[in-house]
Amino acid sequence: MKVEFWYEFASTYSYPAAMRVEAAAKAAGVALVWRPFLLGPIFGAQGWNDSPFNIYPAKGKYMWRDMARICEAQGLALKEPVRFPQNGLKAARLALLGQDEDWGPEFTRRVYLANFAEQQDISDEAALSEILSSIGLDAPSLIARSNEQANKGRLKTQTEEAVSKGIFGAPSFLVGNELFWGNDRLEAALDWAKR
Amino acid sequence: MKVEFWYEFASTYSYPAAMRVEAAAKAAGVALVWRPFLLGPIFGAQGWNDSPFNIYPAKGKYMWRDMARICEAQGLALKEPVRFPQNGLKAARLALLGQDEDWGPEFTRRVYLANFAEQQDISDEAALSEILSSIGLDAPSLIARSNEQANKGRLKTQTEEAVSKGIFGAPSFLVGNELFWGNDRLEAALDWAKR
Repeated sequence: MKVEFWYEFASTYSYPAAMRVEAAAKAAGVALVWRPFLLGPIFGAQGWNDSPFNIYPAKGKYMWRDMARICEAQGLALKEPVRFPQNGLKAARLALLGQDEDWGPEFTRRVYLANFAEQQDISDEAALSEILSSIGLDAPSLIARSNEQANKGRLKTQTEEAVSKGIFGAPSFLVGNELFWGNDRLEAALDWAKR
Repeated sequence: MKVEFWYEFASTYSYPAAMRVEAAAKAAGVALVWRPFLLGPIFGAQGWNDSPFNIYPAKGKYMWRDMARICEAQGLALKEPVRFPQNGLKAARLALLGQDEDWGPEFTRRVYLANFAEQQDISDEAALSEILSSIGLDAPSLIARSNEQANKGRLKTQTEEAVSKGIFGAPSFLVGNELFWGNDRLEAALDWAKR
């Protein structure tokens, strides 16, 4: 069975997950589908207008320390983002266009690096344009397509699908209807897919 | 270095952690200290008067499914508790008496089994008394000692120490001042202790 990787660009733990999910799925012989979505509406429905890591400071302090350990172990750079959480809406609309195309994974990884390793503003269209160009894509055309009403609606639908599948955080992994939450559940999800 | 295992009897993920922590620490050659505390005051300070797994239903639904998978993999029984969360205050006061004695770990494991595998009311002194007797202890004497003002104060102090160390959930593992949160971080905590 295939594994669906559900991610949100503002999500800290989605960063190490995004950087390793492709190699891990390949090593396990499991097909992988990339599914960008938005946590904002899901958190909003729970009464949160900010990241729980900001609302609950002890949890936030721990998360940054935990992320530092995880990134170090994975050989990933980690720098305090220009703001946290960043607005990943525009990046998610672009990632959605690449969801079923071969450039989607690389675009996704570069946006995560921009957010969590390079202190770039990923809500800025110019920064996203640069990322698209750096992987040989037609940035103006893709940005125009990402802003079309149909694509905006598609991201909304994908986020509603996340809710309907029981997703409440990111990263999440789905194997059929079996849900796994968190970067630390990637291996369990891949094992499940191989059953 | 030693690992401190901080646990709360109402906490679901503390159950599989409590059942495996001793063997895991022994296999790693790391000394282990059992530290019961109360999450209630910590959650209360965050504005929660219930378990977050009840306050946020999607998270709760996921947690029970995740627990089922984890317990199955670990060969542990899991049955819906008589209520969730149960009040672990009395059990924690007893566990604190056993914290530095050889019966503490076994008492702790039996209380977790009573809560999550045997559908017993762990807030009931009679159930706790039975557990104490079953491991050959003088239940009336221990229950009397657990209810003394000094012991009540000691549990309060231990919970304050948890807060001061940055603990916000259970189970947590401390290696010096390095904090690891969650049953799934036990291995990382043991690795840290061996550095």
